[in-house]
Amino acid sequence: MELCTTEGYGKVTIEAIAARSGVSKKTIYRWWPAKGAVVLEAMVEMVGEVTQFPDTGDIVTDLRNQMIAVVDYFMTGPRAAVYAGIIAETQHDEALARNLLEQLLEPRIRAAQERLRRARDQGQFAPDADLEMAVDLLYGPIYYRLLLHLGAYSHKQIGALIDLVIGSLGPVRPAGPPPVQ
Amino acid sequence: MELCTTEGYGKVTIEAIAARSGVSKKTIYRWWPAKGAVVLEAMVEMVGEVTQFPDTGDIVTDLRNQMIAVVDYFMTGPRAAVYAGIIAETQHDEALARNLLEQLLEPRIRAAQERLRRARDQGQFAPDADLEMAVDLLYGPIYYRLLLHLGAYSHKQIGALIDLVIGSLGPVRPAGPPPVQ
Repeated sequence: MELCTTEGYGKVTIEAIAARSGVSKKTIYRWWPAKGAVVLEAMVEMVGEVTQFPDTGDIVTDLRNQMIAVVDYFMTGPRAAVYAGIIAETQHDEALARNLLEQLLEPRIRAAQERLRRARDQGQFAPDADLEMAVDLLYGPIYYRLLLHLGAYSHKQIGALIDLVIGSLGPVRPAGPPPVQ
Repeated sequence: MELCTTEGYGKVTIEAIAARSGVSKKTIYRWWPAKGAVVLEAMVEMVGEVTQFPDTGDIVTDLRNQMIAVVDYFMTGPRAAVYAGIIAETQHDEALARNLLEQLLEPRIRAAQERLRRARDQGQFAPDADLEMAVDLLYGPIYYRLLLHLGAYSHKQIGALIDLVIGSLGPVRPAGPPPVQ
């Protein structure tokens, strides 16, 4: 990751990774088929640390904290180009695409859906709110802005995005038991 | 585009484009710097034909028709891989990224904002509705699903997406003059 953020993802080679880490190219190729796979695994470790899904009981605050961490860490600055470079490579590398889905995206998507489901179970959204689509609505725009070069959202815009999406899921009310009818 | 959809974007070369079109490589290079630029220009011509922004007076119907055309034409079947391939190339080709923005994305984004603005001016949304973000919410998820290999939306899902986003912009009412207070 250090190499990628200083040299640029496109210029990093397996040779350079071997030299920097003090192991042979052969050792790297024993564990990873190509550069994309090495860098993806490094990203997966970071994602696990950075994008924990909190549950304070307040879905808007929790989404806000998690999404600001994602955008600040992966969608801005030098790591943004690294992440975009990996996603680009998955367009013509099916194995890397599968790894991206299985190791990075699907677990994070499930965690987001799970957090929204708890809020729905607490009566914070309409009972038939489509939580899969809600996750697409939250994360779709931030990936779209990264990959189509439209510029990352500010923290304020992330807050506005969450308000719009959460508002679309039905009336938000504080967590707690359902109101007595 | 025929070559790209039959051979796969990654396998198409300037040589193959020259052979298929019956001109010399030199002629192609006189007009376009690289394969990505040739294919992008072909896409731009198609986009203009396929994704016209209608105005029937009903914003939901108009978005639905336009977005179904975009998803069916560019996000599913063989053209999806071509479009994803071009977007991938823009991650390490700044000139192509600029062309993608200027020739294809920005005009379509402006057209979508313009159509939403007319609906807002007719009182169909809250007067302070954020129309830039609304466009991100509409198109973000369909690009996200394309580029992250999550599968394109069905027509039914596109309808549900539009309903959620339009619902988030404030109460929808039929087009016409504002109600008398």
